[in-house]
Amino acid sequence: MANTANINGKMAQLGKVRSVIRDIFEYANNRAKEIGRENVFDFSLGNPSVPTPEKVNDTIVRLVKNADSVALHGYTSAQGDETVREAVAESIRRRFGADVDKNGIYMTCGAAASLTVTLSALCVPGDEVVAIAPFFPEYRVFAENAGASFRVVDADTERFLINFPSLEKTVGERTKAVIINSPNNPTGTVLPPDCIRRLCGLLKERADLYRHPIYLICDEPYRELVYDDATEVPYLINEYDNTVVCYSFSKSLSLPGERIGYIAIGNKIAEKEEIYAAICGAGRALGYVCAPSMMQRVIGECLGLTSDISVYKRNRDLLYEALTEYGFECVHPDGAFYLFVKSPEEAAAEFCERAKKYELLLVPSDSFGCPGYVRISYCVSTEMIERALPAFRELAREYGL
Amino acid sequence: MANTANINGKMAQLGKVRSVIRDIFEYANNRAKEIGRENVFDFSLGNPSVPTPEKVNDTIVRLVKNADSVALHGYTSAQGDETVREAVAESIRRRFGADVDKNGIYMTCGAAASLTVTLSALCVPGDEVVAIAPFFPEYRVFAENAGASFRVVDADTERFLINFPSLEKTVGERTKAVIINSPNNPTGTVLPPDCIRRLCGLLKERADLYRHPIYLICDEPYRELVYDDATEVPYLINEYDNTVVCYSFSKSLSLPGERIGYIAIGNKIAEKEEIYAAICGAGRALGYVCAPSMMQRVIGECLGLTSDISVYKRNRDLLYEALTEYGFECVHPDGAFYLFVKSPEEAAAEFCERAKKYELLLVPSDSFGCPGYVRISYCVSTEMIERALPAFRELAREYGL
Repeated sequence: MANTANINGKMAQLGKVRSVIRDIFEYANNRAKEIGRENVFDFSLGNPSVPTPEKVNDTIVRLVKNADSVALHGYTSAQGDETVREAVAESIRRRFGADVDKNGIYMTCGAAASLTVTLSALCVPGDEVVAIAPFFPEYRVFAENAGASFRVVDADTERFLINFPSLEKTVGERTKAVIINSPNNPTGTVLPPDCIRRLCGLLKERADLYRHPIYLICDEPYRELVYDDATEVPYLINEYDNTVVCYSFSKSLSLPGERIGYIAIGNKIAEKEEIYAAICGAGRALGYVCAPSMMQRVIGECLGLTSDISVYKRNRDLLYEALTEYGFECVHPDGAFYLFVKSPEEAAAEFCERAKKYELLLVPSDSFGCPGYVRISYCVSTEMIERALPAFRELAREYGL
Repeated sequence: MANTANINGKMAQLGKVRSVIRDIFEYANNRAKEIGRENVFDFSLGNPSVPTPEKVNDTIVRLVKNADSVALHGYTSAQGDETVREAVAESIRRRFGADVDKNGIYMTCGAAASLTVTLSALCVPGDEVVAIAPFFPEYRVFAENAGASFRVVDADTERFLINFPSLEKTVGERTKAVIINSPNNPTGTVLPPDCIRRLCGLLKERADLYRHPIYLICDEPYRELVYDDATEVPYLINEYDNTVVCYSFSKSLSLPGERIGYIAIGNKIAEKEEIYAAICGAGRALGYVCAPSMMQRVIGECLGLTSDISVYKRNRDLLYEALTEYGFECVHPDGAFYLFVKSPEEAAAEFCERAKKYELLLVPSDSFGCPGYVRISYCVSTEMIERALPAFRELAREYGL
């Protein structure tokens, strides 16, 4: 027998390319062994640092103790438990006034599953999927695995909203969908209503011109993570009929490992039943039998709750104020838990290397499709930020800021 | 804008084609409303009827109450928590003596995910995936979604093991993998050691001839569900180097809704690291970020446990004895929780319709790639079987058996 494994090389490549964030993770662990965990200032991770609300854990315990075990841990229907889907739809109607019912809700194993299922449901080979830089790097992997080509809109480096001239050039006849992510990873910016209206107007115009729908995929795991009452996060189903919302409870309820989220489509989407069927079909083809059954019931009872996000707000304010005072350039983040800071030298990777001398671990922005910046996650303890500030100050001094 | 949804029609089709089992499920619900749930004898489902062991629920409660919430519900590494992977590998070494370590274990969201990830890792367009009739119908969906063609080996209608003449004709130059499922859904048969040896011998011979590996994919969610001490279920990694085991805790621990399982490859598989990387890459591309984190820890503490399968054995004995006494033809099932009964008339669908007159809900075998039979699930209460026996007797009489 030949020695070669003779398998899918693209998948092997995907599995081998360790992400930059993963490399930093390994470095952090090694460095922690050398100098102690408390002396490593790791700002690289997107793992919520605030525990899930007590009610989530209490609900798990109550269900395990009182519910019928066979039903609790048994299959739900592929699209999710009907009571849970109704509760999710009701919560969307109540909070956003959107025209959504349980037959537009499909429970998923988290945001990544929401996206892969949606893209597989919508795309055929030859289609193009458009993302706006800077973007979550897995979008490219997910779009290409669904058979589509991936197109990138240049970053708006002024405000990190949408670079409309670039968007107008990028959306074309073969565009099947545009992905937006607001509040954004990695910039923390929130797309304001006027920006959303302009985006939707352009997509409607182009859909008319090309005579086929262009879908707006809203990846919004950070929806609830906004820190000022004045910040409005428009609900896109209200603005644009052909919207698919990809939601996850990972960040809002600090449950990223439990893999629970949903896809929502409104009643005015083009041929709703056809699209919902394609979502069910894609979930089936990708091997998602149903979303984890107990967690479906748990989130069904905890809708509207969030972890204590005041911690993130405090962290944001502390870090943003300090870094800008030290001379770093940074767009003010309205949400999520990231700061996107301009690298004081052209190559962000070099800047990150220099930051390591001060035990500061930052993520260079290259893989987000927008070189020259670093992402600083502030889903860490406030106390660590406080201890890290002198290091940031020294780093700024080294660059003469 | 055009009115057509302009999406992936294949996915919409997959989502719309309700499986036969799903249709029966709806019928059962409607009929239950008319005549009362207790009067409908529903033998159509594969949902475990025995609760999960107490230790599983106790472990959930203990972890939720005592473990650090951020870590418990946080992301694990993509391949699964390292401690859990080591525990799974150790359990495989202890029970089967197989040469497996934690770097050959990849935790998944259940058996369907194990299969889709494995097939996407191995297959490229043009490859063929071979299954042996009768087979779990989703194999076709999963193989085709991974870009492969699906080929079927005719059923061995004598013993429901392997029809070797047909296998020899079906395995060819383009065969990338052969899927086996033992104990089998829908027949309940277990492939005995001599049959396994013959299968492995043939695959080795063909791999040599074609000069590329042919993988053996073992879908074994029913491994622990065997009812006689004498029944040996060979562990394929010991028999054939290029084996990929796709396991799920759905049936053994009655947790089908929780979506937890694993992929295991041995240390002697061709280019282990390359294949493991491809598995990681495929998991990433399909949107599986990690298997549900809390359930990973729970099964890590409950390895080797099973639900009380003596209930299934009692059900099997009761139903097999009665049906064969009434004159039905049926292969003796060694495991799983299904009886595969020959339809007394050629069209199994007609037989199922007639059975409905007696409120007996059975699944015709056509979608399993082996027409002329019905699948009877005995993962139901023993008391329901007892009450249903007179109906089976009447049905047999109607056919003059």
